[in-house]
Formats: sequence, structure tokens, C-alpha cells
Amino acid sequence: MKFTLVGTDLHSKARLGQVETAHGTIETPIFMPVGTVGTVKAVQQRELQTDIDAQIILGNTYHLFLRPGLPILEKAGGLHRFMNWNGPILTDSGGYQVYSLAGTRKIKEEGVTFRSHIDGSKHTFTPEGVMDIQRSIGADIIMAFDECPPYPCDFRYARESLDMTHRWLKRCCDRFDTTSGRYGYEQTLFPIVQGGVYPELRRHSAETIAALGREGNAIGGLSVGEPTEQMYEMTELVCDILPTDKPRYLMGVGTPANILEAIALGVDMFDCVMPTRNARNGMLFTTQGIMNMRNEKWKNDFTPLDEGLGGHVSTTYSRAYVRHLFASKEMLGPQIASIHNLTFYLWLVREARRHIQEGTFLAWKNQMVEQLMRRL
Amino acid sequence: MKFTLVGTDLHSKARLGQVETAHGTIETPIFMPVGTVGTVKAVQQRELQTDIDAQIILGNTYHLFLRPGLPILEKAGGLHRFMNWNGPILTDSGGYQVYSLAGTRKIKEEGVTFRSHIDGSKHTFTPEGVMDIQRSIGADIIMAFDECPPYPCDFRYARESLDMTHRWLKRCCDRFDTTSGRYGYEQTLFPIVQGGVYPELRRHSAETIAALGREGNAIGGLSVGEPTEQMYEMTELVCDILPTDKPRYLMGVGTPANILEAIALGVDMFDCVMPTRNARNGMLFTTQGIMNMRNEKWKNDFTPLDEGLGGHVSTTYSRAYVRHLFASKEMLGPQIASIHNLTFYLWLVREARRHIQEGTFLAWKNQMVEQLMRRL
Repeated sequence: MKFTLVGTDLHSKARLGQVETAHGTIETPIFMPVGTVGTVKAVQQRELQTDIDAQIILGNTYHLFLRPGLPILEKAGGLHRFMNWNGPILTDSGGYQVYSLAGTRKIKEEGVTFRSHIDGSKHTFTPEGVMDIQRSIGADIIMAFDECPPYPCDFRYARESLDMTHRWLKRCCDRFDTTSGRYGYEQTLFPIVQGGVYPELRRHSAETIAALGREGNAIGGLSVGEPTEQMYEMTELVCDILPTDKPRYLMGVGTPANILEAIALGVDMFDCVMPTRNARNGMLFTTQGIMNMRNEKWKNDFTPLDEGLGGHVSTTYSRAYVRHLFASKEMLGPQIASIHNLTFYLWLVREARRHIQEGTFLAWKNQMVEQLMRRL
Repeated sequence: MKFTLVGTDLHSKARLGQVETAHGTIETPIFMPVGTVGTVKAVQQRELQTDIDAQIILGNTYHLFLRPGLPILEKAGGLHRFMNWNGPILTDSGGYQVYSLAGTRKIKEEGVTFRSHIDGSKHTFTPEGVMDIQRSIGADIIMAFDECPPYPCDFRYARESLDMTHRWLKRCCDRFDTTSGRYGYEQTLFPIVQGGVYPELRRHSAETIAALGREGNAIGGLSVGEPTEQMYEMTELVCDILPTDKPRYLMGVGTPANILEAIALGVDMFDCVMPTRNARNGMLFTTQGIMNMRNEKWKNDFTPLDEGLGGHVSTTYSRAYVRHLFASKEMLGPQIASIHNLTFYLWLVREARRHIQEGTFLAWKNQMVEQLMRRL
């Protein structure tokens, strides 16, 4: 993997970059649609490519490990082939999902033991094992196995958790560096900065990780319930420490406004279930603001979903039609909404790149964070 | 509307034809995907056109009348514009759905009073009203309002029901012929032959309807539970009476084998929810037979769904992948399966047309009815 820093904004810490992977080049800042279990929910792979212009998607290690499971993924020749997606894939480490299984999981120095949410079967994730699993999935970018502490979390727990995350990171790097790509192409490992909302822990973690000199770095444990201002504060603190010549990935973030603010702080990569999850509930992000398609007010609005956005579904289908689909509980409603919202998220980062390039990012961002979050 | 009989098979009663409508020309024999409430479930309009090669789709008057309702459809400029489908549309008369609401509907000479399955509101469908409704929906082909008696049904009920259907038909024609197209294009009315499984009633009905000389004719009240042989018997009897220079539409039929057998008896048009409904349950029709995608046996089968069929989804996605989607209850499973099954149904009638043209229909049909219905 190779990262090229193409440019830096004069008025903010926003950056323009390129990440080259075995499955193609990614322009940053970028948003990665979440393809939990080998499918970006309700969206065809062809639509990801042609309509949405996705450059990289994310897979969830926990979900893929349980279903379809590694034997099938390996026989298929990896996740790219299994799901017919030829662009880059990043996998999370499964840590976040496993910790969400409160009550059925047990965290020890060795790793985490948990029970499947599907059949209750017992499994253990260790740093070494999770490296092997992600290699088998065939991700281009593999995430370190970390503990993601909840919010709120007392200082002592956060510090002890961070120390273990750092010890686990060493084990991840050792395993990753002594194994090789599973399907004949290069894979790369991103460590994850943790530390809760404690500046000194975040600083310590960012310095520890910066010192490793890996090909890219991630910021985890944010957007877990803390106030937005604290999220930005931690993000800025960490970005200022992480190396400038490596991409920075802010995990699980966020709203359109969150993404723009984090770009302004120097973040290059994002993922979030929000565009697809909200789409399935009838909530659309548009260039003019947020629309709830379950609302009666769209009943007689025959204008396109979002002409300003462009793209097939957003300019073809009317608000009245999509409202009708949601009112009638027709599958096509969530399908159209999912494509629309992902098209919007990819438009957002594309516009951000353009404005960074043209030197107009900061003013545009300040206008957009207002405009995009208002309710239509 | 104009029908051209292009050719007739030498070894069966199969026919090749062309139906010209204001929204395009349909090659017959044809299958019409069912778009119940303004959407062919789980399928995008663009996919209908480019992947599935649908030439005409069907809308359900009962469902569209309740949701989105006529005021919205009229403001949109008709169903074509509302749903963004520019090809021909046929609407059923709502009769079949209304009679299915056993317990909440009341049939009188004037019409049928029923309660909405959505909110319990009370409505009346009359022959005149249903003509007006279908004109407002904007269908290219409008169906007469008939009574579709259940199976089994005693002779006396069947005869009385048929008499009323014929009286209703006269009212339909009178209303239709004294009103004009709602959105500036021509619409046409198809009467429906009824008569249960009683040859003399079917003969009487077919003769009555043939004498009207409408632009196309339909056969209703079959595939409602009667033995398949009786369905074929009634279809043949009716086709032999209906005029040869008008298209014949066998309503609500059926399996791939049913369709091929009915083509051999002289039927030109078909519709059925089977390809989409079964798709949502994981049942695929393929050129080699039927596959249940919930079955464990496809777990490690990385061959495409149906290479012989061609088309994007059928040659792109593997059986193992689609099986995984159904096992994981992912929306993309029903989506892919729906496109696949409709692609198959349109392939089936396209192949039938080719074989009729080449004079090889009968032998091909006899081989196919075996092959297509076997379980893989």
C-alpha cells in the first residue's frame, strides 16, 4: 500500500491524498460504505460501482467469521471474489462487535471469548487469530485487534484497557509481519489509537502508534456516546500527533457534519452505518438537508429526491413515489434510499476533495454543516 | 392498440405476434412482471428494462386505488410517470383482489362493496367506476370488471356469476367507449372469459366475448385451484373460439411449464406473481430446473446462479453467495433472486418465440416442461 499526500488546505488541516492498494487507488478524503456480512445492505455491487462511485468498502470480521465463515470465504478465493467486488476492502477487527455482546463475552489478556449472536456457539478472538482471520477474508486493509471501551469509562479502566490494546497491538504486528498475503496480493495493517476521552491517554496512544510507522493509522473509540465537541477535540489532538505522510481513518464516524468537521481536522478515511441504516428507516440525506420519507408532506411532491445530487435514483424517482414506497412497506423504498444516501456520502467527500483542491474548503464546510443537517 | 399475428406454429397452436401500444411494441408470447402497488417488488425500474428485458408490466387496480390513491396518481400524470416506467402497463380490474377479501365484501348487481385491508375503510367497485379508475391510473390495457368465482364452485353459481359478469361487461364497454384516454394517449379494454371449469359455460362466455370484437381478450378464473389438466382443457376450448387476430391473455398463470403448455394452446400473454414471490422465499427458476437457495447444498457451489440464462445477476453471483445472503436474511438475496427469476421468465417467452419462428417449438416445449420443473 502506498499513500501520497497530494495537498494540504491552507485554511484548515484538511488534506488531499491517494491510497494505492492491490485492488485500486482511493482518493482521500473518502467515505467507505459498510458491507457488514458481504453485502452493503440492499445495494447491488454494480450500483456501488456505477451509481454510488464507492472506491472502497468495509467488511465486518465478526459477522463474516460467523457467516459465511472462513472455510467458505477461503474456498471462494476471499471476500472480493465471494461477493464480486473488485475494489479495495477494509475489514474491522471484530473488536467493536464483540464488546457489544455485553453479558456473553469475557475479556482476558489472551483475547476475548464470546458467544455467537446467531447460535450461541463459543469462540475466542485473539490478536493473532484476528490477523489470520482478516488475512483469510482477504481484506486490503486489516485493522488491529483492540479493546474499544464504552462511554462513559473511568480513567483507570481506560488506562488499563489502553495498555492492553497496546500489548495486543504488538502481538498483531508480530503476527501480521510474519505471515503473508493469502491470495497473492499485498495486505496492510492499520493500528488503532484508543484512550477514551482522556487527552493524556489519547496523546500517549497516538505517540505509541506514530512510532510504529505503519502504512496507515486509525482512531477508534469515538462516536460511542461522548459529546460531539469531545469527539472533535480527541480527533484533533490525535491527528496532530499521527504522521502526516500516512492516511488517518476515523472509525465509525458519522453524520455529514461530523465528517466535514473531521476532514477539517486532518482525517482522510471514514465509515459509518448511518447512511444505509437511516435509509432503511426512510431518512434521506440530501444536498439541501434531511428528509423523512415517511412524512405526509412529500405525498404530492413530484420533484426528484435530490436534483442537486445527481445520479440515477436521486434524479429519477420523485419524493411522492419514494414516500409511497415507504408508506406501502415496499422493499424498493429502502433500496432507493440506500443508494441515494450512499451516493450522497460519496458526493460529500468528492465535493470536499474538490474544495480542498480549490482552496475553498473551509468556507464551504462551514456553510454545509448548517445546510446538510437542517430538517426539510 | 394494434395486434399483428406474425405467424402460427405448424405443429401446435402457438402463435407469434406483435402488440403495438402508445408506450411501445410488445412481442408475443410475452410474460408481464407484476408490479402490484407501483413497484415490481424488490426490482428497480432500470433493472426491469435493461436486465430483465420486460416489455410490459402489470399493476393492480385494487392496491393502487388504496395506495397511493387516484388523486396522487392523477397529479403525477398517471402511473407511468409516478413510478418512472415508460413501457406499456396493463391493469387488472381489482375484481380478483376484492373477491379474496372474503368476509368483508358484498357482491350485488350494482357492484362490489368491500373494506380496505389497510384501514378498514369502505369502498364500492362498480363496472363503470373500475373503468374510470383504470383510465385514471393510465394503463395502456384495461381489464373488464368481472366476478372470478372460486374453485370448486357449483354449476348454478358459476352460471349465475357468468351471467352477471357478462352484464357487467356490457356496462364496462359502454362506460369505456363513452370516455377517453386520461393523459393524451389511447387505452384499450380487454373483456374476460369466465365460466369456471364448465365447458358449456366457457364456450358460451368465449362466444359472447368473441362477438364483441374488442382489441384483445382475456381468460380469467383459471389457476385458482383446479387440476392442471382442467386448466389446459378450458384454455384450449376458449382459445379455439376467441378470434385469431386478437391477442389472448391467460390471467395469473403460472409455472414455466404452465406457460409453455398454454402457449402451445394459443395463448399470447401471461402474468403471475410466482417468479417474484418465490424469489423472495429463495426459490429460483433456472434453465436446468428449480433451486432452493436456502438449501445447504449450495454452500460451497461457487458456480454462477445460471450461466445458461445469461444476464448480469445470473452470471455474476455464485450460488454459494446467494445462499449466504438468504441464510443471513440479507435483502440483497430477494433482490438478486427477483431479478433472476424475472430474467428467466422473460428468457422463457423469448426462447418460445424463437422456437415458434424456427418451427421447433413443440419438441423444445416438450423437453423444457420436464427440464424446467425438476428440482436441482
